[in-house]
Parts: sequence; structure tokens; C-alpha cells
Amino acid sequence: MQFLTDTTKSLPATVPFVGPEALERQLGIRFKARIGANESTFGPSPQVLEAMAKAAVDSWAYGDPEQFELKEALAHHHGVKPENIAVGEGIDGLLGLTVQLTVVPGDKVVTSAGAYPTFNYHVNVHGGELSFVPYLDDREDPQALLIRTRDIRPKLLYFANPDNPTGSWHQAEEVTRLMDEIPEETLLILDEAYSDLAPHGSLPPLEPLRPNVLRYRTFSKAYGMAGVRVGYVIGQAGLISQFDKVRNHFGVSRMAQAGAIAALNDQAFLHETVAAIHNARETLNNIARDAGLLPLPSATNFVAIDCGRDGAYARALLQAVLRQGVFIRMPGIAPLDRMIRVTVGKPDEMEMFRAALKAALQEVE
Amino acid sequence: MQFLTDTTKSLPATVPFVGPEALERQLGIRFKARIGANESTFGPSPQVLEAMAKAAVDSWAYGDPEQFELKEALAHHHGVKPENIAVGEGIDGLLGLTVQLTVVPGDKVVTSAGAYPTFNYHVNVHGGELSFVPYLDDREDPQALLIRTRDIRPKLLYFANPDNPTGSWHQAEEVTRLMDEIPEETLLILDEAYSDLAPHGSLPPLEPLRPNVLRYRTFSKAYGMAGVRVGYVIGQAGLISQFDKVRNHFGVSRMAQAGAIAALNDQAFLHETVAAIHNARETLNNIARDAGLLPLPSATNFVAIDCGRDGAYARALLQAVLRQGVFIRMPGIAPLDRMIRVTVGKPDEMEMFRAALKAALQEVE
Repeated sequence: MQFLTDTTKSLPATVPFVGPEALERQLGIRFKARIGANESTFGPSPQVLEAMAKAAVDSWAYGDPEQFELKEALAHHHGVKPENIAVGEGIDGLLGLTVQLTVVPGDKVVTSAGAYPTFNYHVNVHGGELSFVPYLDDREDPQALLIRTRDIRPKLLYFANPDNPTGSWHQAEEVTRLMDEIPEETLLILDEAYSDLAPHGSLPPLEPLRPNVLRYRTFSKAYGMAGVRVGYVIGQAGLISQFDKVRNHFGVSRMAQAGAIAALNDQAFLHETVAAIHNARETLNNIARDAGLLPLPSATNFVAIDCGRDGAYARALLQAVLRQGVFIRMPGIAPLDRMIRVTVGKPDEMEMFRAALKAALQEVE
Repeated sequence: MQFLTDTTKSLPATVPFVGPEALERQLGIRFKARIGANESTFGPSPQVLEAMAKAAVDSWAYGDPEQFELKEALAHHHGVKPENIAVGEGIDGLLGLTVQLTVVPGDKVVTSAGAYPTFNYHVNVHGGELSFVPYLDDREDPQALLIRTRDIRPKLLYFANPDNPTGSWHQAEEVTRLMDEIPEETLLILDEAYSDLAPHGSLPPLEPLRPNVLRYRTFSKAYGMAGVRVGYVIGQAGLISQFDKVRNHFGVSRMAQAGAIAALNDQAFLHETVAAIHNARETLNNIARDAGLLPLPSATNFVAIDCGRDGAYARALLQAVLRQGVFIRMPGIAPLDRMIRVTVGKPDEMEMFRAALKAALQEVE
């Protein structure tokens, strides 16, 4: 296969995340609770389902490659202009395009050790060189990220707020300081997948948009539409227009566009979901504490639970929970790998986790 | 924007195809017939709609990143193994990934002058250098493509059978000869988007799979699912596994996976659609002939109509047809740009085109 690039040849055939379906096939079981991928089991709004069913009938036709109506709706929702928005196949797809726009083999990229693996995956795809900054007290460390960035002058700096996998967050002022102080030759990738769940005072205002900051949002989390595949990125028009040079123009499905518009139009459903997530988070915190484990504070739809020992122990506990038929995940590397990560869900799903955790703890003791 | 790559900076913000929605906004009209993008107005199977509606309810969850069930169904359908299949967001998405896997700036790529613009778009995205071979008698010219390939030793050779935009096709033996004689350092991209409509004897057997050939198929054409976004590529397992290194693993929506499986399971609907397309093609041929124009033989769901004069004339005619409220397209470059390209549709859509063509011809005379 001489036609492959050197970068392609050097890449492992890794997968950023093994899907729960693959785990079911490996383990020979069916999960009774799927609370590992930070999906929203509260689902999408009934209005979204209605809009997608209507769009399905017209699915013989490509979706609008300009996503005109969706961008209008998003612009109105956020108080920006349509030209400040690019829509793609989830944040994952948009992260891939961002790396495509910016990174050639050997270019440097800064992120936190233990942060979003799919971003790292895309950087590797394009031959970028990742430089990892440790978490500080189980949170991303903006000051250390800034120092590393000033030091090695990377093309990209990745920062998530609220953050996955620990569920932590920073105050808006801290994020604004990062935006203010990042060198202009570095593009800040501000992953705000969990922004709809962010505590008051933690999201910097969108304006003023900056020449080297992109902010990533999604319908996959609080809106309950992970399987639909639609996310977007907000930035200055000149920067946003770069996506038109490289994106798969017809890539966002007709149902995704219609569903996303309907989701925006049903903010009442979003507020209900956010309230349900807050309640479920408390339940999950109690389950963890009742089991003698330590739930970390979370600004997301999941809770990272410190299992109090090392990575080997947490991994064994995770496997035991999986065998109980409850799908959860955990951070991949130390020191975060002493945690398991559990997505909030409906009361019955939380009780399934309570039982699975109890049985798993007995098994691994 | 110092963080952009040199290739990104050099790219124009072009769009491979302007969508009909954008044309509607520009012209200030609503198209009454949408027969320009080779979509199937016969729509998807009712079983597809049912499967997608069911999947929509579960769309809070990501689709299976391994697309296990869909690949099993495709493998069974084609008599190959699941590891011979990669699934993506339409052929467009898969073409982008293929170029990502193979092309670095300066690498050469051979295609036909006037062939699929979205392939060229992706080559440009990755800084590849396109080398164009002219059509011969309004068909791709395999012999000339092979000579050019042996001459410049490109990473990729693009060939579509049946072909867009002329609707022409080659016999299986000719395509097999191309596969046999292409140098091993070149990957043959065999775009078979219209394979479900291909005349008997024009598709080479899938086996033996070859180390440097990939065959692209889609649910967007005969299956009537363009807006759903699902296509696939067939090849040797070692080559197919390369896609796992670079693809957006969760990119194919839950509804797309379920819909595609349902589409495969309803071959009766496919056969009905193919018969309807054959009938409509005859209608379209007659409309063209009645108007004094020359329809080209077609193995697809569209007909290229030679307007008998130059590109300026065909462009004027196309604009006049658009103003009549009928969306059609035309090839972009000479000598193919003496044609307009009309997708077949339902009888009422064909009659709308007949009337629009008549009015447009009067207008441009």
C-alpha cells in the first residue's frame, strides 16, 4: 500500500472510544442501563421527534448544504450572526475539520493529560505532536496550559469547560483570562459540549468574538440527540468561513437539521432536562457516598467517582459493574484513572447502578 | 490567522455544489420540481421510514461506532465479509477520508476533466495536484486514463461507472482491464454510486478484491436516501481497516444505520424504483427529442441532454429552466457544458420539466 501517506502508515488502528455495542458483543451480555457515554437518557424533545419524522419523508433529498435555517435559528438563539456559525456532524466532526485546517505533520498541539481522547485522535490523524499538561486537583490547569503554550507556541490549545472526564468547570473570568492571554498564533479550541449544563457564571459571554478562539457546542448532551449527529462552532466570520473550504458540505442530514431547529424551539424541554439532570446528579452523588466512594463536583450530566485507590482497582471495579449489565466508563490515564465515570439517568437507571456498584464492590474487595 | 496551514490559506472558499435551497434564496422562487441533484423523488422504502422513526426514539444514544449490524447486512448482501466494508457519511465523506489517507501536498491525482467535482474538492483540501484527462465521445476514457497514470504515477485514479455527469457506462471487461493494468502504487477509486442502476454486464464482480482498488456505493441514489447520509466502500480488509485510523467513528447516525439495514431488506422496493427510473428515463428522452434536443444514453437516474450549441447557450437555457421553477443542473466545463443534466422523477415532475423546457427554449431562442 505504497499510496498511503507516511502519517497514515504510522497510525495505529485505534478507536477513541469502544462503543457499548462492542462491549456487549465482547462480554456476551445486553446492558440494562447505558450510562457511560454521557448521552441523555431523558431523550430528545417530542417536538424533535415530530420534526425528524417529517424530515424523514423528505429524506430522498439532500439536506441544505448551507444549513441556512439552522444557522439562522442558532444565530438568533445565541445573539450572533449566521456567518459566525459552522455546523457539522457533531463536535467530533468539527474537531477533525479544525485540525485539518491548522495542523501539518510535526505541528505542536497542547492539551491536558487525560482530556478528550477524540481530539487527540484527530491531532494524530494529521501528524500533529501532542504536548500534555497535567490536571491540577482533578481540573484542567489554565495557568499551566498558558505557560506551556507560551513556551512551545502550538497551533492549537484544547480546553473544555465544563470538562470531561472529571465534570469540573472554571469560572468565566478564568476562561476569559485564557482567551486574553493566549498568543495570537495559537487557536484556542474551547470545547463547550456541556455548556447547556454549565453553572451560572462559568460561561464567558460570546461577544466579543476573538480572532483565535473557536467555541464548540452540541445537541448531543443536554438536548438528548447524540445519535442524530449535529454540533456547531461559533467564532469570527473570517475564521468560521475556513470550514467551508474543507467540510463535507452535504454531510449534515436532513433529519439532523430539522431536529436541531425543533430542539432550539423547545427550550422548555431543555430546562426540564437540565432540572432532571441536576436531580439525578444528587442521586448519583448519594449512591457514591453510600458506597463509601467520593463523587467529584460536576457541572455536567455525569459524575466522576473517586474510588480511593489506584487505576488497577478502578479498572477492576469498572469491569465488575459492566458484568452487572450497567455500561459506564472511566478516564484512561493516571491520576484520573482512579475514578469511574457515570452518566446520570432516570431513577430506575440510577437504582440499577446502585445495585451494580454494590455487587461490584463486593466482588473486587 | 497564522495557525492555518499553507494549504488552507491557498484554498478558495468554494462549494462543490450550490444547493437548490441556495438557488431558491438567490432567485426568490420556490422550485416546484427538484430534479437536479440526482436524488430519487421516488423516495425511500416505507420500511426505511418505519425503521428510522423507531431509531429516532433511541437517538439520545450514539449510533454503533462499529456499525456492526449494518456491515453484517451489507456483507451478506454483497457476498463479502464485514471487514471488507467501511461505512461513512455518504460517498462524499468516504472520498474525503480516502484522500486524507493517501494524499499530502504535491501528490498527484488523475481524474477526467468534467468528472465528479466533490472528489476534486477533497483532493484540493489535501493539497493534491489534479491531472485531468479529457472525456472521449462524452464518456470517461479508460485507455487515456491508464496512459496518464503510467506516465505520472499518481497516488489516486478516479473512475466512475456508471458515470456522472454524462450518465455513460463501460462494460465490466473494460473496468476489469483498468483494475488489472493500473500500477500497484496507484489506488483506483471506483465510484459506483449508480451501481444499483447499472446495465447488465457493466459491473465487474466484487471478487477477487484487489490491493489497490476501492469501490464506493451509496444509499443516496436508487435507495432514495440522499438526505440520510450513508454510503460505504468495499475493498480488501487491510485497505479497509485504514479508514478506522481516520474516520469520525460516531459519525453515521443511528437513523442512518437503521434505515440502511431496512433498505437492504426491502429489495422489492429497490426493484420497483429501478423500474420506475427506467420508465421515467424513457419519458425524459422523449421530452428532449420532442424539444429538438439530443438525450445521451444513460445508465443512471438522470439524463444528460445535449443542447446542440455551446456552453453559453446551455447555461442560458439552464437559467431559464430554473426561473420556470424547475431545478436542474449541468456539467461545469467544456465540452460537456453543452449539456443540461436532468434527474428522472415522477410523471408530474417530468411534465413540469417538459413545460419548463419548452418555455425556456422559447425564451433563449
